[in-house]
Amino acid sequence: MTQVAQPSRSGVTDLYFDFLCPYAWRGLELADVLRREHGMRFRLRHFSLVQGNHAENPDRKHPTWWLDRQVAGQGSDYQAGSLNAFLAGQAALQQDEDAAWAFTLALFRAKHQPAEGVPAIDLRNDGQIRLLAEATLDADAFGRALEDQEGLRAALHEDLQDSATLGVFGTPTFHLPDGNIAYFRFANLVTEPGAALDLWTLYTRVLTDGARIETVKRAK
Amino acid sequence: MTQVAQPSRSGVTDLYFDFLCPYAWRGLELADVLRREHGMRFRLRHFSLVQGNHAENPDRKHPTWWLDRQVAGQGSDYQAGSLNAFLAGQAALQQDEDAAWAFTLALFRAKHQPAEGVPAIDLRNDGQIRLLAEATLDADAFGRALEDQEGLRAALHEDLQDSATLGVFGTPTFHLPDGNIAYFRFANLVTEPGAALDLWTLYTRVLTDGARIETVKRAK
Repeated sequence: MTQVAQPSRSGVTDLYFDFLCPYAWRGLELADVLRREHGMRFRLRHFSLVQGNHAENPDRKHPTWWLDRQVAGQGSDYQAGSLNAFLAGQAALQQDEDAAWAFTLALFRAKHQPAEGVPAIDLRNDGQIRLLAEATLDADAFGRALEDQEGLRAALHEDLQDSATLGVFGTPTFHLPDGNIAYFRFANLVTEPGAALDLWTLYTRVLTDGARIETVKRAK
Repeated sequence: MTQVAQPSRSGVTDLYFDFLCPYAWRGLELADVLRREHGMRFRLRHFSLVQGNHAENPDRKHPTWWLDRQVAGQGSDYQAGSLNAFLAGQAALQQDEDAAWAFTLALFRAKHQPAEGVPAIDLRNDGQIRLLAEATLDADAFGRALEDQEGLRAALHEDLQDSATLGVFGTPTFHLPDGNIAYFRFANLVTEPGAALDLWTLYTRVLTDGARIETVKRAK
């Protein structure tokens, strides 16, 4: 297992996220607008908050407790739910890019923006995930992909290994093609194409400014 | 003692800093350029990292351990040095603005940018602080101000109370006249006037963007 994170592919921004995180959801929605409206390219990558914050992982870069090595359905609701969602997400990534994004966003919305009167999805609930897959993916291919749990866990491990090596600590984190990488948390959903491009331009300017900005964080 | 932080004065940005912090030093240098070259107004305020991170202060907004209530010279080097530096800083603030800034910057530079071959200043060393005061202030007035330790501690307490109420957690933190307030950490010293203005514009745009950006933080 390599300890060196893969460099982002040429021109592609790696987007690390956890389905548990409401800020990751906003980041995914932003990236989806940039992808659809402005031709930008993002790769969907998984980072686990449960793993990152686990008491057995005091050294963020060298975890000893890995989510991908846990038994399905075990541990806290967060642990079991995020592992289940990640494995479904990895299965979706085997399909074409638009379908994989549609499923990923559908799962995020079911968790963080459920329709009025509908409870948020329980990420452990395979029946509910299956319904989202049927709405967005080739459901038969998704079902077959899910049967290869070992392969899905290996793919998840690669994401978790890369995010650990890079020092990712929260989501969404964007890893730009130029190597800059930072957590980016914003409170308001941005879906208007012009506003999305402006926000992205602002974020990347922060990361490329000659002062080498390391942190901007509101006091609360 | 009021628990409500004073709003920033009209058009004035409050700059919270700790002499211990190398990033606060960069923030002060930036603000000084903006002040001298671009007519912006900043108020020098104190925030204590020793107090903020103290084990007896788990609730950042409601400290029970206050630096301004400690015996001079007691505690760790950080504690004793920062209290000593803050009290000198408060004494300097009784003089005119340019002199107070000159002293504050001289103290920061002696700590974080000593001349080659010269050790960094020991903030507990009153003789060294006196030398800096003689180079930048009306030294007699400074000496008289230092005699009113109770008044200096009361002024320091007001800064520490306001920073606690505002949720300041690190330095430099800038509290803009519009109410936005955020920690701003950058690695490279910025002293060129155009670059300083560009950096400040970028920082304030982050805080006023419609997405309500809460955090940009590099993974390491």
